[in-house]
Order: sequence, then C-alpha cells, then structure tokens
Amino acid sequence: MCGIVGYIGYEQAAPLLLKGLEKLEYRGYDSAGIAVYDGSGLEIYKSKGRLKILSDMIEGGAKVKGTVGIGHTRWATHGEPSDINSHPQVSDSGRFAVVHNGIIENYMSLKEYLINHGVEFVSETDTEVIAQLFEYYYDGDMLDTMLKVLAKVEGSYAIGVISQEHPDELLAVRKDSPLIVGIGEGENFIASDIPAILSHTRDIYRLEDNEIVALKADSITVYNMEKEVVSKTPFHVDWDVSSAEKGGYEHFMFKEIMEQPEAIRKTISPRLKNGKIVLDDVSLSKEDLEKISKIVVLACGSAYHVGMNAKYILEKIARIPVEVDLASEFRYRDPIIDESVLVLVISQSGETADTLAALREAKRLGARVISIVNVVGSSIANDSDDVLYTWAGPEIAVATTKAYSTQLAVVYLLALYLGEKRNTITTEQLERYVKGLENLPNQIQEILEHQETIQYLASQYFNSRDIFFIGRNLDYSMSLEGSLKLKEISYIHSEAYAAGELKHGTISLIEDGTLVVSLATQDMLFDKMMSNVKEVKARGAVVLGLTTEKHKEIEKTADHVFYIPSTEDILLPSLAVVPLQLFAYYVASMKGCDIDKPRNLAKSVTVE
Amino acid sequence: MCGIVGYIGYEQAAPLLLKGLEKLEYRGYDSAGIAVYDGSGLEIYKSKGRLKILSDMIEGGAKVKGTVGIGHTRWATHGEPSDINSHPQVSDSGRFAVVHNGIIENYMSLKEYLINHGVEFVSETDTEVIAQLFEYYYDGDMLDTMLKVLAKVEGSYAIGVISQEHPDELLAVRKDSPLIVGIGEGENFIASDIPAILSHTRDIYRLEDNEIVALKADSITVYNMEKEVVSKTPFHVDWDVSSAEKGGYEHFMFKEIMEQPEAIRKTISPRLKNGKIVLDDVSLSKEDLEKISKIVVLACGSAYHVGMNAKYILEKIARIPVEVDLASEFRYRDPIIDESVLVLVISQSGETADTLAALREAKRLGARVISIVNVVGSSIANDSDDVLYTWAGPEIAVATTKAYSTQLAVVYLLALYLGEKRNTITTEQLERYVKGLENLPNQIQEILEHQETIQYLASQYFNSRDIFFIGRNLDYSMSLEGSLKLKEISYIHSEAYAAGELKHGTISLIEDGTLVVSLATQDMLFDKMMSNVKEVKARGAVVLGLTTEKHKEIEKTADHVFYIPSTEDILLPSLAVVPLQLFAYYVASMKGCDIDKPRNLAKSVTVE
Repeated sequence: MCGIVGYIGYEQAAPLLLKGLEKLEYRGYDSAGIAVYDGSGLEIYKSKGRLKILSDMIEGGAKVKGTVGIGHTRWATHGEPSDINSHPQVSDSGRFAVVHNGIIENYMSLKEYLINHGVEFVSETDTEVIAQLFEYYYDGDMLDTMLKVLAKVEGSYAIGVISQEHPDELLAVRKDSPLIVGIGEGENFIASDIPAILSHTRDIYRLEDNEIVALKADSITVYNMEKEVVSKTPFHVDWDVSSAEKGGYEHFMFKEIMEQPEAIRKTISPRLKNGKIVLDDVSLSKEDLEKISKIVVLACGSAYHVGMNAKYILEKIARIPVEVDLASEFRYRDPIIDESVLVLVISQSGETADTLAALREAKRLGARVISIVNVVGSSIANDSDDVLYTWAGPEIAVATTKAYSTQLAVVYLLALYLGEKRNTITTEQLERYVKGLENLPNQIQEILEHQETIQYLASQYFNSRDIFFIGRNLDYSMSLEGSLKLKEISYIHSEAYAAGELKHGTISLIEDGTLVVSLATQDMLFDKMMSNVKEVKARGAVVLGLTTEKHKEIEKTADHVFYIPSTEDILLPSLAVVPLQLFAYYVASMKGCDIDKPRNLAKSVTVE
Repeated sequence: MCGIVGYIGYEQAAPLLLKGLEKLEYRGYDSAGIAVYDGSGLEIYKSKGRLKILSDMIEGGAKVKGTVGIGHTRWATHGEPSDINSHPQVSDSGRFAVVHNGIIENYMSLKEYLINHGVEFVSETDTEVIAQLFEYYYDGDMLDTMLKVLAKVEGSYAIGVISQEHPDELLAVRKDSPLIVGIGEGENFIASDIPAILSHTRDIYRLEDNEIVALKADSITVYNMEKEVVSKTPFHVDWDVSSAEKGGYEHFMFKEIMEQPEAIRKTISPRLKNGKIVLDDVSLSKEDLEKISKIVVLACGSAYHVGMNAKYILEKIARIPVEVDLASEFRYRDPIIDESVLVLVISQSGETADTLAALREAKRLGARVISIVNVVGSSIANDSDDVLYTWAGPEIAVATTKAYSTQLAVVYLLALYLGEKRNTITTEQLERYVKGLENLPNQIQEILEHQETIQYLASQYFNSRDIFFIGRNLDYSMSLEGSLKLKEISYIHSEAYAAGELKHGTISLIEDGTLVVSLATQDMLFDKMMSNVKEVKARGAVVLGLTTEKHKEIEKTADHVFYIPSTEDILLPSLAVVPLQLFAYYVASMKGCDIDKPRNLAKSVTVE
C-alpha cells in the first residue's frame, strides 16, 4: 500500500507535497513524512498518525523551504507505525532520502550484508535498506547508482529518491507498484495516483515495470534497465477533479453509495444496444468461445464476493462451470490451468498485488484473461487479454460500494453475452434480463430513498458485539459482502454463513438477542430460508429479514423486515447490497468510527 | 435431528425408554418425553431440558406402568424448546401419540386444513400435525391410517406411533431419516441408532425409505407403501457396547481426541499392502478413471473442511481439478454435473440430510459417487456407488475429532490411489507418502503427549472474546477447522481467514491483545506467512504460531509457539489439527462449557 508523491520545480515544495499526500491518504494513513532539499541539505519531517499531525508540525509546509522534495503516506508492512519507521527513509550520512511503496522481499539479507559492512540502521523498515544501498553504491551519478541498487533488491516497489549531492534531480522507478509522472512547465511530478497532482497538471506518463524516470524542473527522461532512453506517450486526464472530492456528503463512502445508480447506468448503457449485449471490449472469437472448458474467477475481498455471485450467474446463464478462488490462495495451490480456461480477474484498483500475481500465474499456465477493473491503464488492465472497465469513477472510501456494484453489473453483461453466443438462453429470456438490468438504477434509487428505515434499524443494533448474516446461494454471497462491509468500518465482529451450514457449528454462538441479518430475496429458496430463520429464532436470535415485496409473510417470523423491489432472481444482489451498505454505514457512523479510513485498512492493497 | 426409541414387550417400558434415550442424547437434548400405554390410556410425560429432568420427574421410569411405549429426545426445528413442543405429540382426543425425527415441510397448510375442520392445536411443532392426522383419518386400522397420513405429509421423517385403541401394536416409518428395528424375543424395538437398544439385542433390521414396520411383542412385519409385506434380512452388530461409552475420560470429546492414533491406524492399515494403496472398496475401472473430468466434493461442517484439504491434496497428487461445495448450497445451484464427474461425499454419520440430498442430486445428474462415511449401512453409504469407510468407531461428542482425522486419512489414500493409477506420482514419491502415512499415528501420539503445553496456552486465552485463525492453502483449511472447533464448544466468536485475505477487510478487527492463531506448517509458504504475522503484530495482535520443528525462527516473531513433527507437506494437516482440537477442548473446559453437548448443536444433522 502507501502513497508517494514527488515534486521538482519553482514553487515551495512542502505545501504542495502535503496537498498531494492528502489525496493519497486512501492508500494508507498510519504515518506520513516529507523530505525537501532546503538549499544546503535534506530536511526530513515525519510523524506517526494522520497527515494532519505532520501538516501541523510544519505549519502546512510553510516552515520548510526548498523546491524539490518527496512525500509519503504509509500503511505499515514491516515495522509498526512509528516516527522512525515512517518514510522518507534516509541513508546513514543523511545524503539520500527515499520513499517507497511495496515490499523488498530480500531486505533481511541485504540488511545483514550492510551491517557487516559497518552501516548502522535505525528503523525496522525494508525501505531503509534502499536508502543505505544508495549511500553504499554511490559513484557520483544518480542513475548509475539507481541501477546498481535495483540489481540488488527483489520485490515490488515504486520508489522516489532525492539526494543533496544532486538537488536538481528526482529519480523514480516502478516494479509491480503503481507510479505516474505528471508533466508540468518548469516543474514536474511523480505520484502513486492521479488525484495527487490533478490540480497542477492533467498530462501524465504512466511508468511501466522496470522503467526509471529522471526528473529535472524542465525535463523528464525515462530509461529502461539497460540505461536506454524510452520514448513515452503522454495521457490526458479528462475527468473532473471534483469527482475525487466528497461533494456535499459527510463521507466519501456515503457519496459513493449514493452514486451507485449513476455508476451502474454508465457501466451498462454503452454496452446495451437495441436490447442486445455489445461487448466491444471482448475479443473472443466463436472458436475461443467454444474452447472454454471452465471459467476461473480470481479476486480478493469484496471483489471475491462478486466472484461468488459470478459463479452462480455465469453457470446459470452461460452453463460454463465456474471456480472462484482467492487470489492469494490460487498462486500457491499449483493450480490446474490450461489454454481452455478463461480466467476472470476482478479488481477495483487494477493494482491489487495478490490478484496481479495470480493473473500472471494464470497467464504463464496458458489461460486467457478477461479482467473487470476500474482504473484505466492499471497493471491488471495492462496484463489482461481483454478488459471490461467498470465506469464507477474514482472510489476513495476504503470500503468499496460503487466499485462492487459496477463489477456485479459487468458480470451480468458478460454472462448474458456468453449466454447469447452459446445459445444457453432464449431471446425472450435475454429481453427480460436486459429490461431488468436497465431498470436497476431506478430500483436502487428507490431503495436509497428509504434509507431512514435502515438508519432506524442501525440505531437499534449499533451496540451489538456480534452480528451474523445468513443466506443461501446468491443471498449467501451477499451475506458475505454485508458482513465484510460491517466489520471493515464498524469493527463489529460479524460473520456470514451459508444458512444451511449454521447448524453444523456456528449456531452455538447464537444467544438471546443476537442479531441475525437473514437474506431471503430468492423466491425458490424463501421457504428453506424461513426454516433456518426459525432455527435461529428458537435459540433467541433477533432477526432482520431482507426480502422482496412479494414475501410479506416474512413478517410472521422476522422481527424487522426491509423490502427491496422485485426483479429477475440473478439481478437481486444488485438491490440487496444497497441496504447492507447503508446498514454498515449507519452502524459505523453511530459508533463514531472513521468511516472512510477504517483502522488497519487501506484501499488498493499493493502488497501481498 | 432428534432421537426416537420405541418398545413393545413384557418389561416395564418407561425405564427402558429412558435408558435408550440416554444413548441418543447426542442427536439432540433440548427436551425429552415418553408416551406409555398404562392399561387404560396413554400416559405422556415430557419436559424441556436434559433427559435427567424427565427421568427425575418419573423416578427413572418406575412411576410409569405399561409395557409398550415410545420416547423422544429433541433438537428444536419448529417451535422453541418447551414442555408443550416436546415429543411425543398427541392428538386432540389423546388417543394417538407420535414421536418424529425430521421436518414436515407442508405442515402449515395441513395445520390450516385441520383447524378449518375443527381440530385444536396446542404446540408450534410440525409433528403435532401427524398426531392430529392420525386422529382425523383413523378408520379402525392402524396400518391403513398410517398410509392415509403418509399420503398427505411431505418432508423427511422417522415416525413412531402408538394408540390406546391398539395397545398391542407399535407402528413406525422412515423417509430420509434413520430408523432401525431391534429384534428381541417376546419384545421388539425401534430406534434412531443402534446404541439405544444394544444392551437388549444385537440383531437389527435397517428400514429403507418408505418402509412401514408394524411391531407386536412377538412379531415384526415390514410393509411398503402398497401395503405389501417386504422381506428383510437382519444384520448382526458385532462392535462392543463399551466403545460407545466414555471409558475413563471426563468427556467423550477428549476420549475421541486420544483415540485418533488408533482410529487412523485402523483406517489406513487394511488399505496399505507392501507399500501399495489397495482400495478394494473402489470399483473404478481403468476407463472410469480416464473419463474423470473433475472431482466435486460435497460435505457440511468439519467434513467440508476435509473437502477443502482434499481439493489441494487431490489436485496436487492426482492432477484432477477439484471443486468443493457446501452440500446445502450445491443442491440449489443448478449445478453443472455430468457422467464425467466423480463426486466425493464426506459425512461421519452417513445421514447428514443436506449431504444426502446433494448426493442424490448429483446422482440424478449422472455423476458417479464415492463416499467417505463412518456408519456402515447408513443412507449415504447405501446410495453411493462406492464407499470408503472410516474405521473411527462410534463418535459421540458433538464436535468431531476422530471422524475428521480418519476422513482426512481416507483422502490421502484416495489421492495416492488415483495418483498411482494415473501416473501422476512416481514410485519413489508414493513410497515417501506411504511411509509418512504409516508414521502419522506415532506422530499424533507424540503431539498428544505434549498436551500440557496446549493446556497452558488455553489457560492464558480462555477469556478471549474473539480469536482469529490464519493460514494459507492447507493451513487455511486447518484454520477453518480449528476455528469451528473453538466456536462450537467454547462459544468464543472465532473466525478463520486465508492469511493473504485478512488485509482485504477483517484486519480492522485486530486490536491490542487480540489472539491470532497463525498456522505456518507448510515450508513453501512459511515466509509469506511470516509477512502476514508481522502485519497483525503491527496492529497489536498476540500471535500463537503453529509450525514444524524445522522453523525455529518463528520464535523471533510469534509470542507463543507450538511445534508439530515434520512430515510430507500434504500430511501436515493430520498433525496440525490435533493441537487445535486440544486448544478448543481446554478453552471450553476452562470456561466450564458442556463440551460433549454444546448449546444449540446436535450430532448427525438430519434436517436441512
């Protein structure tokens, strides 16, 4: 995780670095720091805790002179959050300062080597090794030194480095961690993500793996590992800066929940033409389609829950067997994959390290990869054979909402596309599903307009210590997502169970007054769910039922009910997730939690 | 769930019914009751709570005269545990008494019908409907009435019924719930399971689905639904009654943990001959083996965790793709299954309702089914093409231990068998694995001899509110099992996570002092696990590491360590599970929980 930013130009660097870091706090926020060359040497300021603490310490940057610098906002991987472990990390002599996003896997052996050669370390970080290596290998030339350092380190990294020996230069490099270069006039930038520099420039280079960039105030040169100059094509950002801001809402998460109808509409509309699914982004030929023996979905976190829905939906609509695997598990499983397997990769950021590694493993084994990604030009998008973008716009809150919903919408499109091509659904079924899809944004809007019901329910249960979610099939996937949302932001220990599985163990945790959120949206499974609801009621549980308007009889059994509109069975998850998101949001809000930046978590998990 | 027992003969029925119910308490124990014909009418005694309460109420049965009766021990499905909802249920007039194990799915509509015809109901149970239907349809003949009643009810059931109109008769029937008939001299028995009647007879009939038995003191007649007499072959029980008793241990669970070396030895030995795997129980021909496109494992609870191990083990050894599904989820998924699929079903009791239903669905779709089952002649065993029995002996504690371990042992045997036949392992590898397998009982014994270390660790953490388990691949499956064991019997809200998945949400629950049990037994994943351990340590977690003696360096990171002996990677789960079982046991013991009969749970889950 972590966010990095760098500046070289004519303005005072520190305030500008702080503003950039603010936009990157979604990538980590347990500590922050900057390094600036002040005319005589490197000034380092860093602090454990939120960026605000650092900002107050240096008076919003005013206190720090100098026009070249680097900054960092951290999500701890090696060494707990502390002042010392914060970045920038500096070398023994103080001549080199480094910011780093990623993990240096062989840092232990490098550290031992350096210690044996008299280098003294102060932090527990893997990053300090990089700074010390710069010092150790420094030969008067920054680029040459960088190449020597990179020859030693293994792992993933986006690195920014400055030195008091070359205050007119800022070097950066990436491998398996995101890094962009902002193109200015008389000034240039690096950053982990676009919003950090969007108020200064909209012209961007995306660095590829193993590219080094050397920035001066008036030049940008990109090199490969052979020290050859690489020619890059800039990229113009045309989205609005305000779309990366909170608008009028108290939290990004709430704003993003409210944006869902629009996000889904944007994702679906360009791909529906005259009642047909048009996926120009997918280049599967008729032969490719016939060759598919199975689909393997790879993802992490909420995207994995989308994958669980995808199994059900793709199998039902396209009749292709689907396996879903956690990306972090898949890699080390020695998976059985060949050319006949279609791998579907799902990631909001397109930089999720586990997912990217799993994708590469699948490709190595010969699979064809389609990805569902929100960030254009991200690593996962680049490495996939086809990309189906979710047009959700930047998602800032750590707990995903609109990215989840648009990923699910893309799954529907893909399933119907495959179903139509493979003749596993009739024209009449297709029409019905398409109509249902087109109606989803309005139905979600309708649910959002009843948010006060959820707010009331949250007020009854926000003090719970444990909350359970149960459901069957699609409702089980939704239970997992509802439970994850709640634990991410409210810190309530919540757990989801396949409703039929409760009695095989977990039901022993149910006691008088335990809240069990029971999803029963699927018509076919309603009666089965009511049996399971009665089982938990018989043990004293309080039940919040979630079902469609068709099933008013739930009121005989559940203590509280939230109704969602009716639609085709496979589309119901798109509606069911909304009250679950709102429930988590309001519970966390009533508990006074830091909703957009829950403790211990970061968005875009770019370490394993 | 629930257990039923019935007697007709010359002895006083009540004490005998109570003794029988005592042996069936593992099937449910939230209430109990008996009905006995006392010479003039039916006497009903029943009570919420353990059997002991009922027994005290009727002075161990001495208070109740009569030589024909039925008894029931309940695990609530419809209606909370209460005196009124206990069985036997009687009809309006009190002339018919019924005990029932299973669920009558259409009881609501039947109940409404009867109410509209003037019948008054007193309980919330589905079972009362059966008793009232007997009254409603009674035409002077018990068998005819039974047939009329069965024509109306839908669902699963084992039913026993007596009537004051025919005190010389006891009728019983089964469909999708277990029921056996005990053959005596001048006396006969029915029961849900053999131990209930083992002190009276060892000669048994197993009823098949849709068979009705009419017992008199000196005759047993079995009918089919066409009222034709069915000829049955008796079955002689040769295992020892003491093997269903606690021996010298305080709890069945502890006894069963200690029995694991022996149970695994019994399961493995007959199938290893001269270093080869001999599975006489599997009738797959060479063509059958070549046809297999994938293996689908279906199971519930702990057996599902065995299935998760099986995926890894079978894929690695036999290179056949494996999917694992919760039985309760599989059925309603519209699964893609054909003749090329080998379905592996895992169940201790062989009566798990969800698993049985999933098995039947798989067979309907043309799959070939191999089951791993502990109870000979059980429904799942009967319905499978091949059965690989685990020779674990009766398992009484609700939380499974030795059944789990022997299921896992059978998975190894099957994987090696398939691997050898398919030439996916070398002779040398096979030899190594076989040697490892043969050594497992001794290695488990060695772990059991270090139980006091686990006891000490349990004493440090038994007051925890939340405990997490993490691991990767096989260690992840083991984490799930360790966590389930703990929550089943200690009621601590414990949750297991794939270690790489924690940071995608659940890590927000980690706070200062949270115990995280970290499994790192797999050599290849040790370093990756240490990264994850550092992540939780950085958030304040206390870490209990579980690894092999090879990885002493874990002591630098973990707060506590338990070492297991080294063996082949795939065999490590058999060792790792033992300290996890002991940890759960000691934590529950220190909390004063009812270890063998945890609240809300029952063994052998014969309802959906």
